[in-house]
Amino acid sequence: MEWEAIEKRLNDLLEKGRHGELRGAMMMLNEVDIAQYMETLDKDKLLLVFRILPKDISADVFSYMSADQKQTLIESIGDQEISSLIDDMFLDDAVDFLEELPASVVKRVLQSATPEKRNLINQFLRYPENSAGSLMTIEYLEFRSEDTVRQAMEIIRKEGLDKETIYTLYIIDQTHHLIGTLALRKMILASEDTVLSDLMDRNVVFVHTLDDQEQVAELVRHYDLMAIPVVDKEERLVGIITADDIMDVIEEETTEDFEKMAALTPSDDEYLKTSPFKLALNRIPWLLLMAVIAIFTGMIITYYEDVLSANAAVGIILTACIPMLMDTGGNCGAQSSTLIIRGLSLGQITLKDFFKALWKEFRVAMIVGTVLFAFTLVRVHFVNGATWPVSFVVAAALLCTIILAKALGCAMPMLAKRLGLDPALMASPLITTVVDMSSLFIYFTIAKAVLKI
Amino acid sequence: MEWEAIEKRLNDLLEKGRHGELRGAMMMLNEVDIAQYMETLDKDKLLLVFRILPKDISADVFSYMSADQKQTLIESIGDQEISSLIDDMFLDDAVDFLEELPASVVKRVLQSATPEKRNLINQFLRYPENSAGSLMTIEYLEFRSEDTVRQAMEIIRKEGLDKETIYTLYIIDQTHHLIGTLALRKMILASEDTVLSDLMDRNVVFVHTLDDQEQVAELVRHYDLMAIPVVDKEERLVGIITADDIMDVIEEETTEDFEKMAALTPSDDEYLKTSPFKLALNRIPWLLLMAVIAIFTGMIITYYEDVLSANAAVGIILTACIPMLMDTGGNCGAQSSTLIIRGLSLGQITLKDFFKALWKEFRVAMIVGTVLFAFTLVRVHFVNGATWPVSFVVAAALLCTIILAKALGCAMPMLAKRLGLDPALMASPLITTVVDMSSLFIYFTIAKAVLKI
Repeated sequence: MEWEAIEKRLNDLLEKGRHGELRGAMMMLNEVDIAQYMETLDKDKLLLVFRILPKDISADVFSYMSADQKQTLIESIGDQEISSLIDDMFLDDAVDFLEELPASVVKRVLQSATPEKRNLINQFLRYPENSAGSLMTIEYLEFRSEDTVRQAMEIIRKEGLDKETIYTLYIIDQTHHLIGTLALRKMILASEDTVLSDLMDRNVVFVHTLDDQEQVAELVRHYDLMAIPVVDKEERLVGIITADDIMDVIEEETTEDFEKMAALTPSDDEYLKTSPFKLALNRIPWLLLMAVIAIFTGMIITYYEDVLSANAAVGIILTACIPMLMDTGGNCGAQSSTLIIRGLSLGQITLKDFFKALWKEFRVAMIVGTVLFAFTLVRVHFVNGATWPVSFVVAAALLCTIILAKALGCAMPMLAKRLGLDPALMASPLITTVVDMSSLFIYFTIAKAVLKI
Repeated sequence: MEWEAIEKRLNDLLEKGRHGELRGAMMMLNEVDIAQYMETLDKDKLLLVFRILPKDISADVFSYMSADQKQTLIESIGDQEISSLIDDMFLDDAVDFLEELPASVVKRVLQSATPEKRNLINQFLRYPENSAGSLMTIEYLEFRSEDTVRQAMEIIRKEGLDKETIYTLYIIDQTHHLIGTLALRKMILASEDTVLSDLMDRNVVFVHTLDDQEQVAELVRHYDLMAIPVVDKEERLVGIITADDIMDVIEEETTEDFEKMAALTPSDDEYLKTSPFKLALNRIPWLLLMAVIAIFTGMIITYYEDVLSANAAVGIILTACIPMLMDTGGNCGAQSSTLIIRGLSLGQITLKDFFKALWKEFRVAMIVGTVLFAFTLVRVHFVNGATWPVSFVVAAALLCTIILAKALGCAMPMLAKRLGLDPALMASPLITTVVDMSSLFIYFTIAKAVLKI
């Protein structure tokens, strides 16, 4: 059935007040889809549908709702309902949700939670944003290395229901240090009397609570993990991070790269839900910064006024070629910087490769530059009717611009990384602005020399 | 232990010919790390180390090696070894690997494989690249709905070892149609006599063999799945795709977006391993295309020659402001198009939102434009010493350029999607070139009108 048809049917049942059937219909849907349906409802209907939902899936559905709808709902339900909702949610989902709420609502939610849950949530809220600690969940299963497979299966049957994953078993010693992990599949295939220490993998990949989420994502991706354990400063196991949360991190970090590369202040908000004022605020500082730099580009033109005005016919051809020169420089810089930035963020390029990459870009620039040099030399002469020396000035300036743009496009992101900045900041807009200035300078210098002005 | 130290120790054992110890040391490492170590070895050592590897992990290690090393190894080992290697690999890994090899080597590998495996591989190689069929694996577990939990556990114990995942059970009817899925965790928690049909989730999310990998990734991300089943045209279950392969797809698709947005022909090759010639080839067509478009931009300047030459002092100020106008237009277009392209690819924006997004960009452009209008009006007057009317011409052209750039940056990616093209093609470089042309036209038109030239 098409989504529109499903939505129509649910709305129909809701309007006719057939709540039993509505509950039955929703039970046939995935939690993600129910949350999506609830996005379309206004405040009163939202509350009604939420109360109709079977209790055992309402916390799950709630986790998948948007921040706005969550807040609307929280503001309409009673303390008792909030408390049971929070208790039913996985800790990491509850913490994520609280991080999105205004302080006044957070206070009310925390007051409604059980004291035990409140303490845990408070502890989690103290981890820095984007740290492994802020991403982890405590809903995992711990075992002792001397447990047998039979004992472990009993623990799983007894406690597994409330855990985010039971597919990896975490094995600790008396002092709560993580000493091994065991995939459930390996355990299921083993005989019931085997002790876990004979099966477990002692070569554990883990992260610390304060590690940055980007590092965590890199490890999970590198080792194809389904979950990664988190330890504290004393290397005691305190939580795990599951792969689905890591996928969200990767998506978030990639969006941040896209935004920085387009000279935007990164933002976690969805585009359609962000006000024009907020969107404008994310863009203006960068545009102003680059408009200020462009003043100097303009000054170069003013300074070389004599080159443009010495001969009116030549001057207008040289002026007419400025956009092509600037665009090509910007595009060449964008091509190089994008490859370098992406390579750095995927770990395919490291700072050790600096000279290797620079030498590669130089050779690429020579090939690309030669092709565009030839094209430009011919077209400025025949299309714009310039003399050969004037054509040569334009083509030569273009070649130099391409080499410079590729060199800067390669070097600037790597230097940024060396200085501890995000390489994505050194993308097309900033490089274009720098290349513009230098290419105009080269252009007029060559013009003066060749045309003897 | 640091990676450098590990590598040194392994090299040490290798050089001293202490093969038993080397094998023991490697058994302590993760397969991904062993593959990484093998990347550093030359042909002879590679072969030696591969033969020293414990047989049960050599196929896994092989899967994680780079295409180059895989080919080197395949060319050095005998048919018998190839055959057992291919048999030990998961089918999807074997197919991926064959897709990277030259045809002559593929032929030799296929000849060495068992007839059964060869048929399967051949069938998989026929799925179009980037389709769900080309990504899927057949190593999953099938069950009947009338099986009990006890029977299912027996099947898992018997057949689970060779399966890529045992964490999701796929339940089919007599005609091999997929009728439900069941999470292993749910089954473990149930009593042994329950039949699977009482536990299974009938609301299955699946894909068809010919669906594009981007669609598959979108579903897996949307529903937080660990694996997604694949069905054929008759809706019979034929394979599954696991989340770790989906993460690779997302990474690949994102890199493709980055490349297209920087006017590069997308390529699967790692930057440092691609020849300068190949890199240049991926860049030249786009640069030439945009250089050709820039000819028209130049023509606009030539056409409005009279505006620039009517008054030398005014002419040089107007010329000096061209770079600022072009850069700001390009940057504004890049900001808008990046947000729209990313929103489209994450499914946060759909074609239905066209007018909503356009109206939002218009309001953003008015805010951003007003700020930059004021800044430019004042700075051209005071810094460049222009008269107020000349300042006004520059500032007004800038305002129009910003509105136009934001409108095009928003509309062009969405129109591309409407036409079935990749929105990422309509990113900064192409939009910059189009905006350049239009903004110069606006600039000179305003100049003629205001300055009465």
